[in-house]
Amino acid sequence: MSRFASETVRALSPYEPGEQPQDRRYIKLNTNESPYPPSPGVLRCLNGDAAAGCRLYPDPVCAGLRDALAAQYGVRRENVTVTNGSDEALNFAFLAFGEDGVRFPDITYGFYPVFAELHREKYQTVPLREDFSLHVEDYGADDAMIVIANPNAPTGMALPRSAIEALVQAHPNHVVLIDEAYVDFGGESAVPLTQKYDNLLVVQTFSKSRSLAGARVGYAIGCEALIRDLETLRYSTNPYNINRLSLCAAEIAVREQPYYDDRCRQICETREAARQALTGLGFEVLSSRTNFLFARHPAIAGQRLYQELKERGVLVRHFSQPRIADFNRITIGTPEDMAAMLGLLEEIIHEKR
Amino acid sequence: MSRFASETVRALSPYEPGEQPQDRRYIKLNTNESPYPPSPGVLRCLNGDAAAGCRLYPDPVCAGLRDALAAQYGVRRENVTVTNGSDEALNFAFLAFGEDGVRFPDITYGFYPVFAELHREKYQTVPLREDFSLHVEDYGADDAMIVIANPNAPTGMALPRSAIEALVQAHPNHVVLIDEAYVDFGGESAVPLTQKYDNLLVVQTFSKSRSLAGARVGYAIGCEALIRDLETLRYSTNPYNINRLSLCAAEIAVREQPYYDDRCRQICETREAARQALTGLGFEVLSSRTNFLFARHPAIAGQRLYQELKERGVLVRHFSQPRIADFNRITIGTPEDMAAMLGLLEEIIHEKR
Repeated sequence: MSRFASETVRALSPYEPGEQPQDRRYIKLNTNESPYPPSPGVLRCLNGDAAAGCRLYPDPVCAGLRDALAAQYGVRRENVTVTNGSDEALNFAFLAFGEDGVRFPDITYGFYPVFAELHREKYQTVPLREDFSLHVEDYGADDAMIVIANPNAPTGMALPRSAIEALVQAHPNHVVLIDEAYVDFGGESAVPLTQKYDNLLVVQTFSKSRSLAGARVGYAIGCEALIRDLETLRYSTNPYNINRLSLCAAEIAVREQPYYDDRCRQICETREAARQALTGLGFEVLSSRTNFLFARHPAIAGQRLYQELKERGVLVRHFSQPRIADFNRITIGTPEDMAAMLGLLEEIIHEKR
Repeated sequence: MSRFASETVRALSPYEPGEQPQDRRYIKLNTNESPYPPSPGVLRCLNGDAAAGCRLYPDPVCAGLRDALAAQYGVRRENVTVTNGSDEALNFAFLAFGEDGVRFPDITYGFYPVFAELHREKYQTVPLREDFSLHVEDYGADDAMIVIANPNAPTGMALPRSAIEALVQAHPNHVVLIDEAYVDFGGESAVPLTQKYDNLLVVQTFSKSRSLAGARVGYAIGCEALIRDLETLRYSTNPYNINRLSLCAAEIAVREQPYYDDRCRQICETREAARQALTGLGFEVLSSRTNFLFARHPAIAGQRLYQELKERGVLVRHFSQPRIADFNRITIGTPEDMAAMLGLLEEIIHEKR
């Protein structure tokens, strides 16, 4: 830390992203990326003349991408803002709507407390129940912004839309932010409710189901006034927040939705097969509506299992938080990735006996 | 504004970027982009297999790009951070180092007051002298962060490195931020001084001299402790702040520096020819070390000239700030762009007589 650092910087504990090691090839099941490439039109656009256009600034209005998303979700351009990954949408939302404080689960996306600290907002964590289920009636009075990842990470468990609606109705004077990063793998989206409630903001991403983690594109959908607040922050931070290549790739990805629907179906099938295989190996596996499984084995500590897999060339994600330290989060890769990972797990478990 | 908006959002007056109209083709001389495409290796990389890699997150350390920049400037990786355009570097620097307040010229980059407001920091503007020259002795006591664009925008005028050194020496207990977006067109960079002073931070960009405005890449160079503070904010905001394609393009651009040196020389030549032609048409033109000229004509108001050019298919930038309302900022395009623009100017001036 420099001797010039502000109090804000001094107080921060930054988010720790998953490992992105450059040292060797791993079967990479640690950061919930898609095992499949972007759709053909996206590859053609990036391999076309988009590159030469990079001498010019991107469209700050992001009209093309916002219109494509609006058409897909049956809303208007004014109901959508687009951001440099969904992290930026979350960051703007915390700053715009978290003034009275923020409440979110004790086990969820690790960036939420960092955003609260960054903006010096009070936050409170609400424990998931013993079985890691989330109950909206635990979220207290209408005195703070509520942030829920649905499906939740790293548990993978999902709430039905009716539960989200009850939460939104119970907190009419604060924003309820639903982070739907993983919704395309079997969750029920709250987007249709944004037409009915002015306090509901839904955040989604191109990083998981749309195979574009590397392009950094996220978005938020909500009523016009909420989106206008986020746009005010976008124009006060970085009006050219999404680069030209990613804007073009994301717009085409929306238009090629059937390609991604097929990939999501494949990933859900692979997930169910992997869940059964893990259960067969003695793992407890939480019910997942995402592109990952959260699992623990009675005979091996979570950290140990993570390490044994890493030594064998497979990366999964382990969190040291006490309640979940026995678990690992395993991204769903290709069927071949999963077969290789399961073979190694069998070997590791066998050695322990 | 929504009924949920925080005080911060309520108080903001966002930055207004230059027009990026999508309605017709213009000779676009309004946002200081390069008229030349990125270098051949950059185009090859973007048109190669980088696109398929977009399913994976980018390297959050940005090791490749930081090492390339460090080698170019004779510093170490720990002296460089890279950002989603230089706007993000500026934003982080204001938040990290502006706690005691910020001081910058009255006529300069319009984003500085927005960043100060965003972080609720007091700021003070220091008037440029009558001839728009900047005198470092006007920047007062060592009680606030100082932010200077050098060369300055939209005037285009530059200070020698010795003046920057005097400023840095006079403010040992606050960060002096030098925004060198335009330095490659004839300015004298303060980067070598970062090895000597722990309170000097230099920000640069790939958007102007390196033909990559659309890729959104900027960077800051300073002593290790200053850079660590900015990295803390990067990891607390968006650790994957630069997408894979832009990271790859920027790294190759650094390695192809001779290509860009040639383009900068060409742009400086075109600038000198345009300056003479404008003077010949009766314009007063400020001395420029940038890829733009700032000019006024005694017979036509700035806003009027801007409008007349726009109707004829040429975009330049006009600022309504009182002291400079008579001027327009004209980006240096290709010699052909400039010839077309000058022909139209002659026509417009002739009509006025």
